[in-house]
Amino acid sequence: EQVAAYRAGRDAFRDLDATLDAIETDGRPVWISVMPRDQAHALLAAAKARLDAGEDLPLFGIPFGVKDNIDVAGLETTGGCPQFAFKPQASAFAVDRLIKAGAIPVGKTNLDQFATGLNGTRSPYGIPSCAFDANYISGGSSSGSAVAVAKGLVPFALGTDTAGSGRVPAGFNNIVGMKPSKGLISTRGVLPACRTLDCVSILACTTQDALTVLRAVSIPDDKDAYSRANDDAAVAKSLNAFRFGVITPTVVARCAPGVTKRYAAAVSSLQALGGSPVEIDYAPFEAAASLLYAGPWVAERYAAISDFAESQPESIHPVVREIVTSGTQYSAVDAFTAQYSLADHALKIRTALNNIDFLLVPTAPEHPTIEDMLADPVALNSKLGLFTNFVNLMDMAAISVPFGWGDGGLPVGVTLIGPQFSDGMLAHIGDRLHRTDPGARLGAGSTPLAQTNAVVAAASEMESVRLAVVG
Amino acid sequence: EQVAAYRAGRDAFRDLDATLDAIETDGRPVWISVMPRDQAHALLAAAKARLDAGEDLPLFGIPFGVKDNIDVAGLETTGGCPQFAFKPQASAFAVDRLIKAGAIPVGKTNLDQFATGLNGTRSPYGIPSCAFDANYISGGSSSGSAVAVAKGLVPFALGTDTAGSGRVPAGFNNIVGMKPSKGLISTRGVLPACRTLDCVSILACTTQDALTVLRAVSIPDDKDAYSRANDDAAVAKSLNAFRFGVITPTVVARCAPGVTKRYAAAVSSLQALGGSPVEIDYAPFEAAASLLYAGPWVAERYAAISDFAESQPESIHPVVREIVTSGTQYSAVDAFTAQYSLADHALKIRTALNNIDFLLVPTAPEHPTIEDMLADPVALNSKLGLFTNFVNLMDMAAISVPFGWGDGGLPVGVTLIGPQFSDGMLAHIGDRLHRTDPGARLGAGSTPLAQTNAVVAAASEMESVRLAVVG
Repeated sequence: EQVAAYRAGRDAFRDLDATLDAIETDGRPVWISVMPRDQAHALLAAAKARLDAGEDLPLFGIPFGVKDNIDVAGLETTGGCPQFAFKPQASAFAVDRLIKAGAIPVGKTNLDQFATGLNGTRSPYGIPSCAFDANYISGGSSSGSAVAVAKGLVPFALGTDTAGSGRVPAGFNNIVGMKPSKGLISTRGVLPACRTLDCVSILACTTQDALTVLRAVSIPDDKDAYSRANDDAAVAKSLNAFRFGVITPTVVARCAPGVTKRYAAAVSSLQALGGSPVEIDYAPFEAAASLLYAGPWVAERYAAISDFAESQPESIHPVVREIVTSGTQYSAVDAFTAQYSLADHALKIRTALNNIDFLLVPTAPEHPTIEDMLADPVALNSKLGLFTNFVNLMDMAAISVPFGWGDGGLPVGVTLIGPQFSDGMLAHIGDRLHRTDPGARLGAGSTPLAQTNAVVAAASEMESVRLAVVG
Repeated sequence: EQVAAYRAGRDAFRDLDATLDAIETDGRPVWISVMPRDQAHALLAAAKARLDAGEDLPLFGIPFGVKDNIDVAGLETTGGCPQFAFKPQASAFAVDRLIKAGAIPVGKTNLDQFATGLNGTRSPYGIPSCAFDANYISGGSSSGSAVAVAKGLVPFALGTDTAGSGRVPAGFNNIVGMKPSKGLISTRGVLPACRTLDCVSILACTTQDALTVLRAVSIPDDKDAYSRANDDAAVAKSLNAFRFGVITPTVVARCAPGVTKRYAAAVSSLQALGGSPVEIDYAPFEAAASLLYAGPWVAERYAAISDFAESQPESIHPVVREIVTSGTQYSAVDAFTAQYSLADHALKIRTALNNIDFLLVPTAPEHPTIEDMLADPVALNSKLGLFTNFVNLMDMAAISVPFGWGDGGLPVGVTLIGPQFSDGMLAHIGDRLHRTDPGARLGAGSTPLAQTNAVVAAASEMESVRLAVVG
């Protein structure tokens, strides 16, 4: 529809200027840098010329934010660390694909430094707070991307998600956080956190929007060793009578009351959609999750920035430094031994999953205040990853969808987790679940979800080109 | 046919005794231990009772050897190190499956200690020499298993193959060495070398025999974290017009003259079978191969025996000790960095393989004498792995088939390497290739290959139950 409007004469440049104006006004701590107006205009002009020449640009004119560990040509990549910043020669593969689809990167968003954190407080560029209450954390590490989308500055943004960095801030800001299967989106041009696990994530107000973006970027990249794009993964698939895993009451009890309530409501809603809940033993999932920060995988974080960490350790955020440099204490024997442990957990997890189509978990067990977070930065962060950390280690796909309001009127998200390349199935059922909430609104705005396009399963599949914007 | 003979009254106990007599006579250095006669009889009696009760035992009464890093209840597992030896509570999964199929484990075979080596000289139990010339190495690490089969003591034996340990000794002894896809055969009850890479391998005189054994053992093991059995993998599949990768003349030139000649003959034979050779750049394969011993994967070898290596380092064979303890020098950062390098090589390898159905390589570039091997134990061993080391790192399947005679009248093997779970396809084409050699004889015996059952591709698939024995 938006492309049609532009074709009918609507001024895409004026819309782009309005977005850039809003970002410049808003600025930090959500954004780290803004695309210079002349460069943004040049990108739009090039897209318009291609559109006018008859090319199909499904995302024409749509502005998007880019987490500042993902390269955008023309802007610095800081990784959330000004001393580390560099000017990339080219945009990341995913950004490039979006530009090819007509979208315009309008700026780089704040993050937990080097994507190390799930809370959003670990950045020298300031602490983006939750779009609903400035006393609460935004979640991270894709903090700026989530808040920018929730506040309606951009209809979607790219994040990353190694341990939960796309899902947790989505859940805390009433938006959708899509964590695609590993390799589905090339990570070329993304500053690694744990290179064997890193995923580009998509933050948007609706699942259909996230899926539209996924389709534009999930293209095989023959220059990325970890690329394993799969044509079928982004195809929405319906699931009628299905079985879904639920966590046991003991695990649910570790969540805040509002989360517990909303989780129970989501279970009921999925039952109403034809699902049968199957209680699963969460112990092996939690054991796998704990390996990510309390095990040799932190060595990957060190490997990613080792030269910088050696030459300028004092430039690193103290909490991040402590985590990243702990990676040097592990031996290769530790690394392999941990892989064996992971394989053993995976065996139990596979057995549990054999029986179900996907797993439903709360996105995060609780929503801390910024003050509490700063007072206990490591332990509280670990807790935030309870339902997210294992997913990439287990090579699974996930999507966090908003599901109403919990304690203190803050949003609560629930996450659907399925096997690799189940992205399209998770998107379809996740969107249906999201839409069972009659009061669902987009991000921190007032537009009802009901006014937006639902995900339509294959066969009757239609491409939506109008991304929902917070209104 | 053999089962039919037994059903018709042939005395299986007498046959078994004859085998045990022959092994006792032969003894070391091929065998490390022999199954006590009463236990062997008890196993056969139990099988016979099941056979008489109408059960289908495709391998009834067939004796087999077991490399001494694979557990057999009732016998010690030494790993090729007497001080390390222990008495396992149960047989390895694969051994157990064979016993269920009616086969009888008759003894444990010699090996390069802790399966660390491709040459067969690294064992305190003596050096099994090539079945064709006592001055030459047997190849390893499955040295005893290969020589026992080549000499006709058993129709098949289990080995392992992490870096080439099944293929290299098969090639040096004129038998088939099947290295199945990772996880196709459970490694539960196998002493790990590199646990993320280890495979049980099958040594037999013909590919059909190896395939029959593979079918009996490639069963999912829900207690092995690395098991990933696949129903389709062991199904023989025909390939009519096919493309196969060949190494460039520069790489061929690094092989001994006899190997070069036989490799060229194998290429011609495959062409005659309908194949088109495609020259491939071997550099990324070799780069991947070199990571296995000159990189952090040796830490897995240390992890496998770390308690023993710490408490009794002097009990370890000096060359093995040097390799295994070098594993402690690598950090987790090294381990992950090497994984990134491997992924980069894999990217190039995948590109090369996209274009072909399988790759044909010599099994080993040359066949050293025992004297030369002992004089330069590390460098010569590395050379032996030129065409084998990368296979498990790249998650591929392989089979070495005999292909005539090279320098000094010693046998030469060629290896077909394909994607994971291409085992059945490789077996079918490998067997066809093997049978293009009109003079092919079984092992070190005189039975013509032509008198044995060929691999028959699915659709017209028939199960062969008579294993070929050297005669």
